[in-house]
Amino acid sequence: MELVKKYLSDHAERNVEELKDLLRIPSISADSNYISSVQEAAEFVCKQLAESGCDAEIVETAGHPIVFGSWTKKPGAPTVLVYGHYDVQPPDPLDEWVTPPFEPDVRDGNIYARGATDDKGQMYTHIKSVQGWLQTVGELPVNVKFIIEGEEEVGSDNLDKFIEANKEKCACDVAVVSDTSQYAPGMPAITYGLRGIMCCEVNLHGPNQDLHSGVFGGSIANPVNALAMLIGKLIDTEGRIQIPNFYDGVLPLTEEERTAFANLPFEESEYLGNLGVSATFGEEGFTTLERRWARPTCDVNGIVGGYTGEGPKTIVPAKATAKISCRLVPNQQESNVVQNLESFLRENCPPGLKLEFKHWHGCPAVVCDMNSPYMQAAKVAIEKGFGTAPVMIREGGSIPVVGTFKELLDVDTLLLGWGQNTDNLHSPNEKFSLEAFQQGTLSSAWLWNELGV
Amino acid sequence: MELVKKYLSDHAERNVEELKDLLRIPSISADSNYISSVQEAAEFVCKQLAESGCDAEIVETAGHPIVFGSWTKKPGAPTVLVYGHYDVQPPDPLDEWVTPPFEPDVRDGNIYARGATDDKGQMYTHIKSVQGWLQTVGELPVNVKFIIEGEEEVGSDNLDKFIEANKEKCACDVAVVSDTSQYAPGMPAITYGLRGIMCCEVNLHGPNQDLHSGVFGGSIANPVNALAMLIGKLIDTEGRIQIPNFYDGVLPLTEEERTAFANLPFEESEYLGNLGVSATFGEEGFTTLERRWARPTCDVNGIVGGYTGEGPKTIVPAKATAKISCRLVPNQQESNVVQNLESFLRENCPPGLKLEFKHWHGCPAVVCDMNSPYMQAAKVAIEKGFGTAPVMIREGGSIPVVGTFKELLDVDTLLLGWGQNTDNLHSPNEKFSLEAFQQGTLSSAWLWNELGV
Repeated sequence: MELVKKYLSDHAERNVEELKDLLRIPSISADSNYISSVQEAAEFVCKQLAESGCDAEIVETAGHPIVFGSWTKKPGAPTVLVYGHYDVQPPDPLDEWVTPPFEPDVRDGNIYARGATDDKGQMYTHIKSVQGWLQTVGELPVNVKFIIEGEEEVGSDNLDKFIEANKEKCACDVAVVSDTSQYAPGMPAITYGLRGIMCCEVNLHGPNQDLHSGVFGGSIANPVNALAMLIGKLIDTEGRIQIPNFYDGVLPLTEEERTAFANLPFEESEYLGNLGVSATFGEEGFTTLERRWARPTCDVNGIVGGYTGEGPKTIVPAKATAKISCRLVPNQQESNVVQNLESFLRENCPPGLKLEFKHWHGCPAVVCDMNSPYMQAAKVAIEKGFGTAPVMIREGGSIPVVGTFKELLDVDTLLLGWGQNTDNLHSPNEKFSLEAFQQGTLSSAWLWNELGV
Repeated sequence: MELVKKYLSDHAERNVEELKDLLRIPSISADSNYISSVQEAAEFVCKQLAESGCDAEIVETAGHPIVFGSWTKKPGAPTVLVYGHYDVQPPDPLDEWVTPPFEPDVRDGNIYARGATDDKGQMYTHIKSVQGWLQTVGELPVNVKFIIEGEEEVGSDNLDKFIEANKEKCACDVAVVSDTSQYAPGMPAITYGLRGIMCCEVNLHGPNQDLHSGVFGGSIANPVNALAMLIGKLIDTEGRIQIPNFYDGVLPLTEEERTAFANLPFEESEYLGNLGVSATFGEEGFTTLERRWARPTCDVNGIVGGYTGEGPKTIVPAKATAKISCRLVPNQQESNVVQNLESFLRENCPPGLKLEFKHWHGCPAVVCDMNSPYMQAAKVAIEKGFGTAPVMIREGGSIPVVGTFKELLDVDTLLLGWGQNTDNLHSPNEKFSLEAFQQGTLSSAWLWNELGV
């Protein structure tokens, strides 16, 4: 490890420059205008894996390609599957970025760019740690495989098919994913639980075109009023979600977990200050950490209908659209939530409107065994990489692949997050700490060591 | 009148060509990008008034200019004030127009363009009828004044100030406005009642930027969910508006009016078919005509917040905006409605959000005396111009100037609509019948004759 440590330290600057090159590629998977950039990012990652000493290839799918890499020359040693993604969220609203989202800028020890923390920067630490071992020791203490996909931000539609069709190729003893956060600066964490997700879109079609609200208003259902009314029914004033049977089977938090969460340092006023809001709002009877990590949600992610330009325009709009997503907890079934939501919307829709409902692929929530030997190895590796032992936390986000690995490969996943919650992931001015980039890479190098012992 | 009739008939084609020239000018008053086009339209109308034989001038205001014209060489005869507007609604959604909104196209006897019926085409009939008299007889049987403004579609902010400051200049015995519709093709109408209007915009500000819905969702109020919830509370399932005290003082329809409305030909299935909706929706206990003409409304004209592009994006949006307008009936007070709506929204807003409320200038509803001598003259003129007697109707739209004329000039207004409800005013593919353009011009010419007798 001394050789590896020296190599990583000597090449720290080069590693940052190469990350910048990757961050310059606008690999926005949701927007079909960026298909060629997504492809370019895949090629970049493939090249990096090859340069680190792995076998690497680009696997085409029905959507964006998957990059697969491997170094499996250590018979008898455990095999670790590293998962990450090279695609990014759309960067808008663009006018809120201090520097452009695809022109990486280093300020105050952070690198700012779309994808900096989610997930290009974090994923990259594992490529660089493998390179550290292979370019110095000449081998790894474990076998490693990489699956770096390009559809994480749009539901990973083709990932499951790839794994399903390549079970032998993907076979492993444990998976590693760095797509979560530390608990706080200086408090690295292992995430043992994630929320699931359900995403859908509702379109309400009213009159065949926008109508004069004076001539026609009052006589037919207005699709914007109606959509608002439907959405308004989804959550009551105490923050409880009103989709029928929504809470059926929801696994309650254990007393141990509630105590552990309560013991984590958390300053609500600072949290609110960072977000720029004056008060919390959520499900009655739960703390903010519980609401974020272990209780389900129903958020409208976007809505549009009618005239949205300057000044007034007195119309009855022809249509209205909303994107709605629910974060799910164990043991909610995504398919039930989708069905119950759609029925609820249809049953409450005013007469005369046409309701169109579509949904994207979601995933269930997961909670992992906190005491497995892999988990122990990760704890040691992080303590050595960061100089402090990690805390055990849950996260509110969703990483669908964790469920896929369990189901198709029968392995647990180590969620080792190097980022921070304040890294503005999915928001303007996304960033990643250069120190965390360095510490994460070192922890990853230690992880190969600890898993290989 | 024979000379006038011949002149109008001989110049029918020229009149259409000149109207097309006016319709080519995108005089969108709501959008500050079109300021110079609005100015250009004012100059065009001024030139037309001068060519018809009137004195004409452009009067600058704090906003868009007013065109004032007059011919007052008939001492002792009544003075008629013609009001119209040369500004138009924004044309979007642009992709739903068969031909571009500012490239007038004649199809099936109609002229298609933004402003064709609202109000360039209708307003123009009075300029052309005056021209008919002055270019043949050499004088009019009445004195006429024209006020053609450029801010009707944005609340007529500067019109009242102009009239207030120029009461002598604007003094008249009766006002004439053609900015309404016939009851149906072949059924010209005089509109004796109009709804008023209240227009506002609500902005809800949540977090200082869009947030990851997994990391933060469930712990703070989502501005889109909250705005939808607030809007959802505005109307109950029976179509009754829930703004506190909204119906206070509302003048009920008389039994005579309800009977007269019920006796008008109205085919609900045809109405719905034209609009492309499968059912009506409105206030319980009222017919469709009553709901459109004589009952108040609360319509969201537009809403936007969060991600509205392709595919999913799992965020808690930073903000949400809605434009809301209410059509008012006698004797609702606009200022009370504004106040009660704002309070209602503030009282029901979830914690942690900032609510910003702004409102534009509105106007009260009006109902005119159906039996005045001016009304009788108009009935005769329309019967002669259209070959059939008009029906007496109310309209759901708002023409604020009618209240202004009553208040500042102490005169009633004759609402003589040459358009059709199906003319797509405020919608894509706005149109105006060329036959109605001709008949309206002839009726206007007869009106001067009847009022001057």
